[in-house]
Amino acid sequence: MIEENRLQKMANALRFLSADAINKANSGHPGMPLGMADVAAVLFAEYIKLNPAAPKWFDRDRFVLSAGHGSMLLYSLLYLTGYKDITLEDIKNFRRFGSKTAGHPEYGHLDGIDMTTGPLGQGISSAVGMALAERIMNARYGNDLCNHYTYVIAGDGCLMEGISEEAASLAGHLRLNKLIVFWDNNNITIDGTVDKASSTDQLMRFHAMGWNTLSIDGRNYAEIRAAVEKARQSDKPTLIACKTVIGFGAPTKSGTSKCHGSPLGAEETAAMRQNLQWPYPEFEIPAEIKADWQQTQTRNTPAYDKWVKAASSAAQEFRDVIAGKLPRNWDDELNALKEKALEEKPKVATRKASEMCLKAIVPHIPQIVGGSADLAASNLTFVDGMKTVSAGDYCGNNVMYGIREHAMGAIMNGMALHGGIIPYGGTFFVFSDYMRPSMRLAALMGIRVIYVLTHDSIGVGEDGPTHQPVEHLASYRAMPNILTFRPCDVVETAEAWQTALTEGHRPSILALSRQGLPLLRTACEKNLTAKGAYVISPAKEKRQATVIATGSEVSIAVEAQKILFSRGIDTAVVSMPCMELFEEQSLNYQLEVLGTAPVISFEAGTTFGWNRFAQRTIGLDSFGASGPADELYAHYGLTADALAEEVASFLHKA
Amino acid sequence: MIEENRLQKMANALRFLSADAINKANSGHPGMPLGMADVAAVLFAEYIKLNPAAPKWFDRDRFVLSAGHGSMLLYSLLYLTGYKDITLEDIKNFRRFGSKTAGHPEYGHLDGIDMTTGPLGQGISSAVGMALAERIMNARYGNDLCNHYTYVIAGDGCLMEGISEEAASLAGHLRLNKLIVFWDNNNITIDGTVDKASSTDQLMRFHAMGWNTLSIDGRNYAEIRAAVEKARQSDKPTLIACKTVIGFGAPTKSGTSKCHGSPLGAEETAAMRQNLQWPYPEFEIPAEIKADWQQTQTRNTPAYDKWVKAASSAAQEFRDVIAGKLPRNWDDELNALKEKALEEKPKVATRKASEMCLKAIVPHIPQIVGGSADLAASNLTFVDGMKTVSAGDYCGNNVMYGIREHAMGAIMNGMALHGGIIPYGGTFFVFSDYMRPSMRLAALMGIRVIYVLTHDSIGVGEDGPTHQPVEHLASYRAMPNILTFRPCDVVETAEAWQTALTEGHRPSILALSRQGLPLLRTACEKNLTAKGAYVISPAKEKRQATVIATGSEVSIAVEAQKILFSRGIDTAVVSMPCMELFEEQSLNYQLEVLGTAPVISFEAGTTFGWNRFAQRTIGLDSFGASGPADELYAHYGLTADALAEEVASFLHKA
Repeated sequence: MIEENRLQKMANALRFLSADAINKANSGHPGMPLGMADVAAVLFAEYIKLNPAAPKWFDRDRFVLSAGHGSMLLYSLLYLTGYKDITLEDIKNFRRFGSKTAGHPEYGHLDGIDMTTGPLGQGISSAVGMALAERIMNARYGNDLCNHYTYVIAGDGCLMEGISEEAASLAGHLRLNKLIVFWDNNNITIDGTVDKASSTDQLMRFHAMGWNTLSIDGRNYAEIRAAVEKARQSDKPTLIACKTVIGFGAPTKSGTSKCHGSPLGAEETAAMRQNLQWPYPEFEIPAEIKADWQQTQTRNTPAYDKWVKAASSAAQEFRDVIAGKLPRNWDDELNALKEKALEEKPKVATRKASEMCLKAIVPHIPQIVGGSADLAASNLTFVDGMKTVSAGDYCGNNVMYGIREHAMGAIMNGMALHGGIIPYGGTFFVFSDYMRPSMRLAALMGIRVIYVLTHDSIGVGEDGPTHQPVEHLASYRAMPNILTFRPCDVVETAEAWQTALTEGHRPSILALSRQGLPLLRTACEKNLTAKGAYVISPAKEKRQATVIATGSEVSIAVEAQKILFSRGIDTAVVSMPCMELFEEQSLNYQLEVLGTAPVISFEAGTTFGWNRFAQRTIGLDSFGASGPADELYAHYGLTADALAEEVASFLHKA
Repeated sequence: MIEENRLQKMANALRFLSADAINKANSGHPGMPLGMADVAAVLFAEYIKLNPAAPKWFDRDRFVLSAGHGSMLLYSLLYLTGYKDITLEDIKNFRRFGSKTAGHPEYGHLDGIDMTTGPLGQGISSAVGMALAERIMNARYGNDLCNHYTYVIAGDGCLMEGISEEAASLAGHLRLNKLIVFWDNNNITIDGTVDKASSTDQLMRFHAMGWNTLSIDGRNYAEIRAAVEKARQSDKPTLIACKTVIGFGAPTKSGTSKCHGSPLGAEETAAMRQNLQWPYPEFEIPAEIKADWQQTQTRNTPAYDKWVKAASSAAQEFRDVIAGKLPRNWDDELNALKEKALEEKPKVATRKASEMCLKAIVPHIPQIVGGSADLAASNLTFVDGMKTVSAGDYCGNNVMYGIREHAMGAIMNGMALHGGIIPYGGTFFVFSDYMRPSMRLAALMGIRVIYVLTHDSIGVGEDGPTHQPVEHLASYRAMPNILTFRPCDVVETAEAWQTALTEGHRPSILALSRQGLPLLRTACEKNLTAKGAYVISPAKEKRQATVIATGSEVSIAVEAQKILFSRGIDTAVVSMPCMELFEEQSLNYQLEVLGTAPVISFEAGTTFGWNRFAQRTIGLDSFGASGPADELYAHYGLTADALAEEVASFLHKA
């Protein structure tokens, strides 16, 4: 326990580093760092388990600044606790182009940033995933290898966002008691006081969700300590409401939204120096305060040494798992599945093909944790031998996320970030919209998360347009750094799984059909899906046209190819299971696949984006309708006959 | 009050119509209609205020089947209460292609469907918007013209989705006491019992959000009645937990997820006929039961007649408002603003231009209700003279939605559907992802909702990639039936507002800049934005290339045009503020605008989709970064010099 007056100075060091950096950048959010400095000081100085010299220590406590706009608080903490990756120069370069100290904490920019935050509600929700990952890893590998807390600082905005409700509800259900959330209860949002938009009793609400709830003065060190102690003893996740004053210390702006998102300015900061008796110049931290800060993490040296010893004598599996390595021969059974498919030529939906793949994969990859947002029976994400985690029994590899797509997305992010886990999760493709903000963060952070998105077109049928994705393929192809796979048969589905699992630094979508699809591939030595596109059915003699199709439309294109040939038109059919990967191939390969004849694209979705490759685009540029799938395909002109007719007439015109 | 045994038969009529139709379609969800038939029978037979002969009666009670998969319950209710728009034939055609009785209730397909539901959580959240619209209209026009309830049937899924938390929290805050939600508390979801994924005490949670909460046996008529009476007396919104058995009556499948989403089948339905003593053949409703049902709405004849009288003597404004008509001369001031802009040539951000427009619009359109998800000061959505609605004082035209983008989207849908209101709402463009599912529903339903989405590119600057939209323009252009406007100056912004407000049957996005932009237009007699695209700066002599740009990039393109001309390359610049509207123009017009010279697109976002018009696409196909906006533009090659260089080198190659 550090003496009160020293701790106060340590907290003020956080305040002034933050205020000075934000002033220098002339941009940023001082309110939260100033208001929460005391809570952060107690947490980091006395409780949190980190080793600045080993920032990736697997069993460190995780810290998520869910209110990511308060980034300077985190940068100040990392600098003062002695992370080598951040210097005073970096702090002075806050928000400059190319600096490590971006406007919001960016995962990968700086050691000690456990996730990218900024979009409200994402941090607290991914922290649920980290806390869940911790319990799963603990159950698998024991206390010596994984046994840590996940701490969160969240603001009013995080609690108002619906995603946090979803995630908190699941955290309460699963009794993730090593999750501790500090709520910066300052009653201020951008547009004014919280009571202008909310009257919710947050503590009662969290209590209703099975949380331990505490309420403290966020500037009282004894209360902060007592709360952390209680939280660590609880058998439930804990929300600590910390009554704070936004911008504490700023004489005229504190307690108002004026200090939320704008620099304090020279005058106000000078007055704050007076007010908080901080006579030091800009960016200067007295040696003894800096020394106090740097000593705080020596607390954790014994724990770190103990862990290193335990880890070095742990089974190789553990070391591979936390390094994100797939086991040797993990896909042998998957390769056998492809061989068998070539022989047996099963006609199955690609969601079913995905289930076949999971049966071949899951037993061989200990890192995998699957799940679905209450559609396991439709997404076919749960396979024999899997076990669902539950409160108190975390030794499983399946999560029942409930009807909470957005939380599923965020929790998968948290599990992937924690390490030791490769998450996949299912819902209907159309409802991926509900988790789009989390998917974007996965893409931005470059993490391995796999979305099993079934019912991928009007092939959904009777459920109608609310359940039929149309614009979704295009909308994800437009998003940077995420792979959108739409396989056409069992072989391509297996290849998509292989590629997605080996892509360590970006998320992947598997868009899968509801309806049965014939096997089209005739060989499987090479992973052609990994090339993005390839000629799946070549022209007989001279290519007069090329039809590019994806997923369920590839077999229709192959039918049309036969019709066209009988009419004297020789075409090639290209399957393009992943547009993004195709764009990464050499120009030579691309030209070889696309050929020089006219190109027609054919996909049961919006044609938007297809002009990149095709001169004629066939698809569906309106919402779908309710009715049997085959009638819908016929109505929208997505049949072999209609396609053949379109190609013939296009060539005639071209 | 109807006798118990007659009411029971009326409820069973709902059950068997539903089960029979689902069997015949061989597709559908019998569980909810069977479980909630008693609640629905009491509500519709004894309480709800409708007039089947005047289905669009403005002051009718609204009914939202938030658990939209239970669509047959609604179709049965509409048929039995005597809506002329639905026949027994329609019920027999359930889920057939082209039928009015789609898999999920589709707004516009059938009188009496107050909104499209199916995506869980949307119904209950839009119902909050309807209840808010009712209070606003009541405050403006009085009890005689608007004074009704909004009833909702919601399932477990609706309560688990985060959007419902957001909306319910705001409903509690605003004390929307005419909102009454029946929760089908059957403890079953698709993947099994609710307790596998949730332990939340829903009643406590809603109590924490300021709701009145009740708990009843959903098959006990006295309890249902007492609950409705109490709810109608409450000064808060009410959640009634109705303990029910999913698939009630089906002897082997009730109480399990087996009857959630699959037909009962002939055998089970036959056994159910035995079980519930319903000796009538498929689709046959005995005359006396039908008569009982048809009489139920005569209750409301006096209220309807009274309303007709009041409405006919109401001010013309009221009749125009509920008809969705804009007042005469509503845009005079807006036109004057454009003229003035041509003279004064203000350099302002388009978000600022939008604020100037709102100042000119809001006083003249009584229907407008604006708002923002806690970013009013950034989105510039609140203008002088507006008043924020609050609990008990609904006579306003601004809503403080809080940090709840998704609920904002759904609530705006509800207000637009209710009628009498044209909603607009603001957030950062990048966070529109949070409300995308509601935006999709607005597009699908074809309703007038306007999204004011500011900070529309890397122009956001220091806040970094989490706050910088890149893929968003493309993602909305790919979505059917929604207009994406990205104006380049004050005149285009005013034109975009004019077009969005006059588009009665589709939603519109206004993507607006954070940074200041010069005035480019030189004339404003014609609304050129309504054409989607036009030559904003023609070639001097002979067009050698055409650059298409949007929003903040148009002025950069005009600069590049000058540089290119000095290098001997004569180009035209096309501004394309709305790609969707341009695609609706005549081919002649399109060709005139695009010309025959090579086309280069230039937009600070993903190039995905631009190949439709351009042979060379310049944009940003990665996430952005944190730093000053001008440095980012320079880094990503989005300057006049870089563009000129690209065009010159492309022409050289082309």
